Amino acid sequence: MKYPNSINKKENKQINYGHRGMSLEYDINESNTFYLLNDIAVIHKKPTPITIVDVDYPSRSEAVITKAYFKIASTTDYNGVYKGKYIDFEAKETKNIKGFPIINIHKHQIEHLILVSKHGGISFIIVRFTALNQTYLLTCEKLKYFLDHFTKTSIPIDYFKKNSYLIKDKFNPRVDYLSIIDSIYLKGEKNEKNNQKY
Amino acid sequence: MKYPNSINKKENKQINYGHRGMSLEYDINESNTFYLLNDIAVIHKKPTPITIVDVDYPSRSEAVITKAYFKIASTTDYNGVYKGKYIDFEAKETKNIKGFPIINIHKHQIEHLILVSKHGGISFIIVRFTALNQTYLLTCEKLKYFLDHFTKTSIPIDYFKKNSYLIKDKFNPRVDYLSIIDSIYLKGEKNEKNNQKY
Repeated sequence: MKYPNSINKKENKQINYGHRGMSLEYDINESNTFYLLNDIAVIHKKPTPITIVDVDYPSRSEAVITKAYFKIASTTDYNGVYKGKYIDFEAKETKNIKGFPIINIHKHQIEHLILVSKHGGISFIIVRFTALNQTYLLTCEKLKYFLDHFTKTSIPIDYFKKNSYLIKDKFNPRVDYLSIIDSIYLKGEKNEKNNQKY
Repeated sequence: MKYPNSINKKENKQINYGHRGMSLEYDINESNTFYLLNDIAVIHKKPTPITIVDVDYPSRSEAVITKAYFKIASTTDYNGVYKGKYIDFEAKETKNIKGFPIINIHKHQIEHLILVSKHGGISFIIVRFTALNQTYLLTCEKLKYFLDHFTKTSIPIDYFKKNSYLIKDKFNPRVDYLSIIDSIYLKGEKNEKNNQKY
């Protein structure tokens, strides 16, 4: 969906919120639920990693964590199985309009994505430029290419436009990243369960 | 490793602890680290799922969770990629010597394993009978067969002996479940990276 440059930001924002839900995470979770309920794929968000310090047991059946810290994730947020393939990705939003600051993804998460790809999994990142209302899927290969060849701390929007895939707005699934995965990696593979383009 | 029936429990326990580490979870985590460092597979334990209620910010950089509850896991504890295949499993210990009480695995975890298998992933459970010092890998197919054909609330040890795979004690990796996966699912597939039997 493209807006003329003259449109005021407030209106744009209102349209985004009404149409697309709260956030990229929300949209991806909804999409994963759609994939699950329609028997297309089994992909889940991992729980937030924490270090538990203290736990109280006010009653026999109930445990309450009273002190814990957030840990830095050693892997990515999402993984699962699609047509027998291992799927692994990280999803990030940025308000930036010129590019995606690489610092938003931890170094060991990038290493994890590269390792997954090396072991035959399909790994990628999904980046939403909120101010542009554009969501891109960048494969691990293209991410690695950028990191190997450029010293920039931010991946320019132009790199996304030329080397990644725009995920078009849909009602359901909201962020249909698996149709992109189909077109990149699984051309010619037929889904035996139905004739939908998945 | 088999012990004569006459051996006293204390001695048995001492041998277990010295030889095999603290628990099945510990052994599997160590094995996954071995697989990762030796470039064999990328398999991780998922974080414990919790619901965060309160978070304090005593300083700008530090967040402390002051109230949270444990959630029932909707998926399994372990997943990852091995030779391009999606791997998904749950691991449980039991002190029982006659069988494995099915209640130890949540119903939706079993449903998840079956769904993964349906979508072309490799799913299974690893069960350690601590008092017998035996660890078995039971494929999702054989688990499903039991659930479909028997009304018992416990899977008898005999069912494991006849229908699952004993994972032999090793120094490293401690619980070499991927060698079992090789022998069941990946016969004939060659690992291009090395000649080890993986």
